[in-house]
Amino acid sequence: MVEERIPLTVHGMSVSGNCHKVRLLLEQLGSRYRWVEVDSAHGQTHTAEFLALNPNAKVPLIVRDDGRVLTESNAILFWLAEGTPYLPADGWQRAQALSWMFFEQYTHEPCVAVARFIRGWTPADSPRRAELPRLQERAAGALAVMEQHLRQAQWFTGDDYGIADIALFAYSDVAADGGIALDPFPQVRAWLQRVRAQPRFVPMPAVTAEVRARFNAPD
Amino acid sequence: MVEERIPLTVHGMSVSGNCHKVRLLLEQLGSRYRWVEVDSAHGQTHTAEFLALNPNAKVPLIVRDDGRVLTESNAILFWLAEGTPYLPADGWQRAQALSWMFFEQYTHEPCVAVARFIRGWTPADSPRRAELPRLQERAAGALAVMEQHLRQAQWFTGDDYGIADIALFAYSDVAADGGIALDPFPQVRAWLQRVRAQPRFVPMPAVTAEVRARFNAPD
Repeated sequence: MVEERIPLTVHGMSVSGNCHKVRLLLEQLGSRYRWVEVDSAHGQTHTAEFLALNPNAKVPLIVRDDGRVLTESNAILFWLAEGTPYLPADGWQRAQALSWMFFEQYTHEPCVAVARFIRGWTPADSPRRAELPRLQERAAGALAVMEQHLRQAQWFTGDDYGIADIALFAYSDVAADGGIALDPFPQVRAWLQRVRAQPRFVPMPAVTAEVRARFNAPD
Repeated sequence: MVEERIPLTVHGMSVSGNCHKVRLLLEQLGSRYRWVEVDSAHGQTHTAEFLALNPNAKVPLIVRDDGRVLTESNAILFWLAEGTPYLPADGWQRAQALSWMFFEQYTHEPCVAVARFIRGWTPADSPRRAELPRLQERAAGALAVMEQHLRQAQWFTGDDYGIADIALFAYSDVAADGGIALDPFPQVRAWLQRVRAQPRFVPMPAVTAEVRARFNAPD
């Protein structure tokens, strides 16, 4: 019996939006991959073994069957999507998709994702909870920029759904976990629904009951 | 007399690293462009006119002669470099370059550039100065990741100098302005020197005397 060759291994935390981006695209591409669960909320990206894969101590990353490593969720999306319908072939459209992906990492994720992390993975008496009002205010600003774009476009990747949508969807879809309301953003809510309706869409796996209880508690 | 057609207009603040990236690449490409100076440190990205160009209120951005706009410094670099020696043609190398460019925006810029902004553009009694020790500590961590890469590679863009080097150079070269010492990072210092030695390299323009005095003052 010959062991099956798996071309790609993902190291990721399933309930991290940055990691879920990679799973969502791989599922939509119908790719075969192995998933190695890494609990980045509890230090597992700081072991010597993990740091040998990524000295920057972050998930997700992918390892090819020859051992080569690629880090940074949005760079992984770009590499996986090359030559597929999830990344436009036109240079200007690709640049616009990348622009939204840099917006996601610089302006969106550091408030939407960080507010969710603080609410779900730090204790109720954590001093970091003092950061929440400011993060939630900045998150609303990022969502307002998305709302404005969506008044004149269906997607962030160009004419069609693609990797910039996946990048922005991941944490926008769980914004409520960070105490961020989507009610003021009807275009964003409609776009989230369009993403969920895409073929082979998979939702982020459920968090633990402990984390869910923290999400449900008031700030 | 026919007015000369300029294909590209850059809106940027000359002494911002994110904006200088775009100038440096355009100079190295030998491209013709017009530069519109925008003082983002004093609110000029929040005028109605500017927000019509970029609702996210950030420089740099480029405007093509047909009015189309592209935002986000690293997306601009990617678009400008497509088909030139500053961006590898190989898909895996491109993805590695993008990985470093996402690292730059997520892990490097938010400490290296923000420490510089606080030291140079906020008053000596600004409460934001309390953020400096933590930002400087995180900056050292980002520089250590770069140092490790440079022990086994000359560049961040692949086999040759290119846009990931430009992206990381911009604020690394002025790290001292943020009170961040490069002494512990000999590989980074040697790489900075290699970048400065590239053909058609242009340094960032000088800051005002007022900002320079703030940089030179102790924290």
